[in-house]
Amino acid sequence: MAQVPEWRFDPLTGRRVLISPDRADRPRAVGPACPFCEGHEAETPPEVLAYRDPGSVPNGPGWQVRVVPNRYAAVRTVEDLPEGYLPAPTDEAPWGRAYGIAEVFVESPTHETVFRNLSHAQATTAIRAWRNRLRYWRDDGRLMFAQVFKNEGSSAGASVEHCHSQLIGLPFVPPRVIEEFRFPDMHPCRFCSWTVNPRLDSRFVSETDMFVAQCPVAPRFPGETRIIPKQHSATFENASDDEATNLVHILFDVLRRIDHVFSNPDYNLIVRSAPFRHEANFHWWIDVMPRTATTAGWEWGTGLLINTMFPERAAELLRAA
Amino acid sequence: MAQVPEWRFDPLTGRRVLISPDRADRPRAVGPACPFCEGHEAETPPEVLAYRDPGSVPNGPGWQVRVVPNRYAAVRTVEDLPEGYLPAPTDEAPWGRAYGIAEVFVESPTHETVFRNLSHAQATTAIRAWRNRLRYWRDDGRLMFAQVFKNEGSSAGASVEHCHSQLIGLPFVPPRVIEEFRFPDMHPCRFCSWTVNPRLDSRFVSETDMFVAQCPVAPRFPGETRIIPKQHSATFENASDDEATNLVHILFDVLRRIDHVFSNPDYNLIVRSAPFRHEANFHWWIDVMPRTATTAGWEWGTGLLINTMFPERAAELLRAA
Repeated sequence: MAQVPEWRFDPLTGRRVLISPDRADRPRAVGPACPFCEGHEAETPPEVLAYRDPGSVPNGPGWQVRVVPNRYAAVRTVEDLPEGYLPAPTDEAPWGRAYGIAEVFVESPTHETVFRNLSHAQATTAIRAWRNRLRYWRDDGRLMFAQVFKNEGSSAGASVEHCHSQLIGLPFVPPRVIEEFRFPDMHPCRFCSWTVNPRLDSRFVSETDMFVAQCPVAPRFPGETRIIPKQHSATFENASDDEATNLVHILFDVLRRIDHVFSNPDYNLIVRSAPFRHEANFHWWIDVMPRTATTAGWEWGTGLLINTMFPERAAELLRAA
Repeated sequence: MAQVPEWRFDPLTGRRVLISPDRADRPRAVGPACPFCEGHEAETPPEVLAYRDPGSVPNGPGWQVRVVPNRYAAVRTVEDLPEGYLPAPTDEAPWGRAYGIAEVFVESPTHETVFRNLSHAQATTAIRAWRNRLRYWRDDGRLMFAQVFKNEGSSAGASVEHCHSQLIGLPFVPPRVIEEFRFPDMHPCRFCSWTVNPRLDSRFVSETDMFVAQCPVAPRFPGETRIIPKQHSATFENASDDEATNLVHILFDVLRRIDHVFSNPDYNLIVRSAPFRHEANFHWWIDVMPRTATTAGWEWGTGLLINTMFPERAAELLRAA
């Protein structure tokens, strides 16, 4: 990595930003030159996990899902983490090197660009890979927090069109995550009360035997949908193989409904799981956030988002789709 | 307004979102059908302020800058504000009607789409209109906070291409603004110490006799620039006529530099001024935020922005432009 990424802290506003200049070099990969396609394994760093055909060799062809370190990582690898590192910038030390890990899940050997077009088996393998890499980093012990997310489409921030998702892990918990995690109203668990009879709610979208989809009460974008496991658990990485399989059903269902109602929008998918080793009083979920609107000066200036659709209306449209 | 806008509060994350369905009906106005062009005054609500040629009549042609209520306001007018209104949603009352004001500054009678192409006199009139409407609402007494902002270009959230800016005012102060406003490090004022010798700083961009432009220490986007008045004042609405004139000089200079370095990006401009009647320990500024990047799942999931350019590098490029 040519330039060391840094955390910056603005003492005038309290804002923390990660400056990661090497990410500006990442290619906009489309079409046959795609570094994620089978046969192009040499164009990524060596894999850290792969689901492979019997007899195939690491970093060669013959795989379903491959996990590799992000060549254009936003953070310097946690392998270099110095003893006694103070993780986030503070008022006393407003600049600081940024350590962590950044991995990419290549979700298909062929050049598929739409996640919900993957086979059910293929998507299940990808989701198990998310879980297994989260488990790996939880057990490693050096990170305090990691998040799995997917950006599909350029207006959702994807620079490579080949189906993929990402994991970024940090040796500290982001301040906003701490804030949300500490939010008092998870006790008794509202998700657990709500998933008992989800169809009674005007924001219900759909359900499977293990998951419920609803539009959240304060969605950021029209059509934003939350997928909640019926089984109480603080962390996604504790999900069973059956839950991973079942998650694909509800995820594909939700994505199909969103595509139908909102004309195939780009979207972000965010796995909201408790920070490592801080599981009390939390219930994991997934946000599916179609990028159906653009944030403007007001939102950036005040932090108050404006959404043009009531979640009850979005849910009604999604239910009918 | 067909549907009453509402504040929604998510008890699971603490997120507040304004749901404003009528905004979905706002037109994407381009070209000759533009409702903001001179001669089309009947297509907007009646003006609340206008800088007019002698002898011209309100809501007819013959003006330089016109201020009108936003036909697609995000909030229900403060005229309807009930006695004892609890302004923001809370855990006890997670839904609530959204009151406030939303006004549009039409910054040119002709169909100009690029703010920095306006004449200096024209832009000065627009900026004085910002100040005067903020003064009006401060003196009105019903609002606690108002923000002036500009969205230029569709990826910055503009739905009308004709040069315009906006003001949204609320009967409460947005939580994030309170947080930033309370930030302890404004005392002694860092801006005041910094503007004494601004060229010594590696993040200096340019200056006029009344303003300094710098890249902030933790910018959200490559090229983000902060314009700071040398004269200490908590609020933009106290700016003098001379400051309004001088502000155009530095604003046009900064916009020209950003256009040159970042190839005419869409941008947001945000006037950061103290909430009404809470001026202690604040120094107003303007954020110019070129939309040189797209936010993705990680940013939405954690609140931690990733910027691909160090502010020192951005300032170096902008200084050279």
